[in-house]
Amino acid sequence: MDIVIGVDIGGTKTKIGLVDKNGVCHEKTFFRTQDFPNLEEYLNKIKTTSDEMISNFGKPVNILGCGIGAPNASSKNGTIENASNLIWKGSVPLVEKLKQRMDMPIRIMNDASAAALGEMLFGGAKDMTDFIVITLGTGFGAGIVANGRLIDGYDGFAGELGHVDMTMGDGRLTGLGVRGGLEAYVSATGLKRTVTYMQSKYMVESRFRDVAYNDLHGEDITRAAEEGDEIALKSFDYTARIMAQALANFTAFTQPEAFILMGGLTNSGKWIMTPLEKYFNGFLLDVYKGKVKLLLSSMEDKTAAICGAAALIWENHRKSPLQ
Amino acid sequence: MDIVIGVDIGGTKTKIGLVDKNGVCHEKTFFRTQDFPNLEEYLNKIKTTSDEMISNFGKPVNILGCGIGAPNASSKNGTIENASNLIWKGSVPLVEKLKQRMDMPIRIMNDASAAALGEMLFGGAKDMTDFIVITLGTGFGAGIVANGRLIDGYDGFAGELGHVDMTMGDGRLTGLGVRGGLEAYVSATGLKRTVTYMQSKYMVESRFRDVAYNDLHGEDITRAAEEGDEIALKSFDYTARIMAQALANFTAFTQPEAFILMGGLTNSGKWIMTPLEKYFNGFLLDVYKGKVKLLLSSMEDKTAAICGAAALIWENHRKSPLQ
Repeated sequence: MDIVIGVDIGGTKTKIGLVDKNGVCHEKTFFRTQDFPNLEEYLNKIKTTSDEMISNFGKPVNILGCGIGAPNASSKNGTIENASNLIWKGSVPLVEKLKQRMDMPIRIMNDASAAALGEMLFGGAKDMTDFIVITLGTGFGAGIVANGRLIDGYDGFAGELGHVDMTMGDGRLTGLGVRGGLEAYVSATGLKRTVTYMQSKYMVESRFRDVAYNDLHGEDITRAAEEGDEIALKSFDYTARIMAQALANFTAFTQPEAFILMGGLTNSGKWIMTPLEKYFNGFLLDVYKGKVKLLLSSMEDKTAAICGAAALIWENHRKSPLQ
Repeated sequence: MDIVIGVDIGGTKTKIGLVDKNGVCHEKTFFRTQDFPNLEEYLNKIKTTSDEMISNFGKPVNILGCGIGAPNASSKNGTIENASNLIWKGSVPLVEKLKQRMDMPIRIMNDASAAALGEMLFGGAKDMTDFIVITLGTGFGAGIVANGRLIDGYDGFAGELGHVDMTMGDGRLTGLGVRGGLEAYVSATGLKRTVTYMQSKYMVESRFRDVAYNDLHGEDITRAAEEGDEIALKSFDYTARIMAQALANFTAFTQPEAFILMGGLTNSGKWIMTPLEKYFNGFLLDVYKGKVKLLLSSMEDKTAAICGAAALIWENHRKSPLQ
C-alpha cells in the first residue's frame, strides 16, 4: 500500500501520521515540540516516531516520501525561517537535515499552504482552480491557489496575509510587531483581544468582567454569545466585520471561487459566520457579488494538518494516472 | 512577416498598432472612443482602421490575431463588463462581435493584466515568474503574474487592486463608490485629491492656492515639488506612504520579485519614487526585506498598452520555438 508520512510542526505539538492516496490518515500520533529544544534530537524523534508507526501499521507499506507543514517554512529553500512560535531560531535547514536520517523525497511548506494543497487533493476544493484557504488559530494563515497551482512567491513566502496592515498604520501590533496586522484582529487570539477591548469601550455587564485575559478561551466566548452576552456578541461582530473587509480585499487580488476556512475560530460556527457573510457581501465589489463562496473546511479537524502536509508528496503522484 | 494587431481601449482614446514578435510597434494610430457611442460602429471602426494600417505597412504581413486591452475586461468571457469610464453600459460581448468582422484569433484582457503580459514578453520582466505590474493613471490597475502565469481569477476579474480598502471603511470614495479604495489615493487622480486635501489641512502658502481642482495637472505638481512647494512635497509624501503600505501588503500575498510601475503618476520620477522606496522598505515584513524590487517600466510610454494587448496573442506563438 502506498503511503506518505505527513508531519505538522506546531509551536505546541508535532503531529505525525500515515496518509493514503485518498487522504485517509491511518496511524497518527504526536509529541510535544517544546520537549526538543535541540534540533538534532527533534529530527531523531521524527525519524523514530515514523519508524514506529510504520512497523505498527500491520500491512506492508511503500513509503513515497515525507511532507511537512510548518510556520514560516520556505518550500523553495527547504527551511523554516525565524518562526516566532518555534524554539529553533534563525534559518533552520530542516529538509536537508532530515534527509540525512530518512532516505526519501521530503518537502516542506508553510502550514496554511499545505492545508490548501490538502483541500485541493482530498477536501472541498477538489474541482477548484482558484481558491484561498484561511487558517484561524493563534495566528491568521493563508494558502492561495490560482490557475490550479499553489502560489509560493519568489522565494517561498507568499500568503503571509496575517501581516497585512488594514489600518493605514494605526492599529494593534501583531506578535511580529506589525502595526494594524490582520491577525491581531482576526484569529483566535484576536478575538480574545477584542473581548478585552470591548470591555474597555462599553460599560455593559458581561461574564467576562470576572475573567482575566489569560483565562479567556474561545469556547467560553462562543458559550457567552449563546447566552446573549453583549460583549461576546459585539466581539464576534467586530471580528467578522474586519475579516469580511480583508476577504473582500483578497478577492480583488486573485478572485477566488471560494474561501475555505479552518482552525479554532471557525468552531464558533454561526456566531462568526453569520455576521461574516452579511458584511462580506456588502463589502464585495459589484463585479464579484454572489460569485465568491465562504466555506468551512470539510477535513477532519484532528488530521487536516497531517493530510495537508502529506499532500505535498501526493501531489506529485496523483497527477497522471489517478487524476 | 508575422504581426499581431494590438488594440488598447481607453475611456478617451482607442489606440491600434501592428506589433512584431520582439514587441516593436511598426504602425500605430488612434481615434476617439467617445466618437462611437454605437458599439457596432465602433467595431467597424476597429476593423477599417486595422485594414488601413495593414495596407499602409508596405511589407506583406501574416496576421496572427488581435489582442485587446480594456478596462473591466473579462478574459474568460471575452467581454467588457460595467466599465465606469466607457460609453457602452452593461456586459459587452466584444470578442464575439469583433470575430464577426475579423476572421482571426481574438483575445481581450483587463488593460493592466495585458500590460503585465507585455512586460513578461517584451519588457523588464522577461526572466521573472513572479511580479506585479501597477498602472497609475486615472485609476490604479494591477496585473499579477505568479508561477510564470497571469492570474485571471475565477471568471477573469482578478487584480482589481484599486478597489482594495486600506482604511477599515473610513476613507475617500473611489469613482465606483468604494470607501477607502486605494485608487482614491494612489493614482494621478488621487494625487490631485491629495493636493486639495493638503490645502485644507495646512495653512502654508502654495502656488496651488490660485488653481482650481479641475485645472490641476500632474506635471504642475511635479514642477511645484521641484520649486520646493510644501503642499506638493507633502502630497507626494502622503501618496507614497499609502502606496508603500499597499505594495507591502501585496507582497505578503504573492511575494513578487518586483513591482513594475507605469502610467502618468510615474512621470513624477524621484518625487514619488524616493519616498516610496523609503516607506516601502520600512513597511515590509522582515522575511521580505531587501528582496522586492521597485522598477519603472522600460516600455515606451506611447506604445506600451498596444504591445501589452498584442502580447495576448504573441504569448501563444512564442512559447515553443522562440522561448
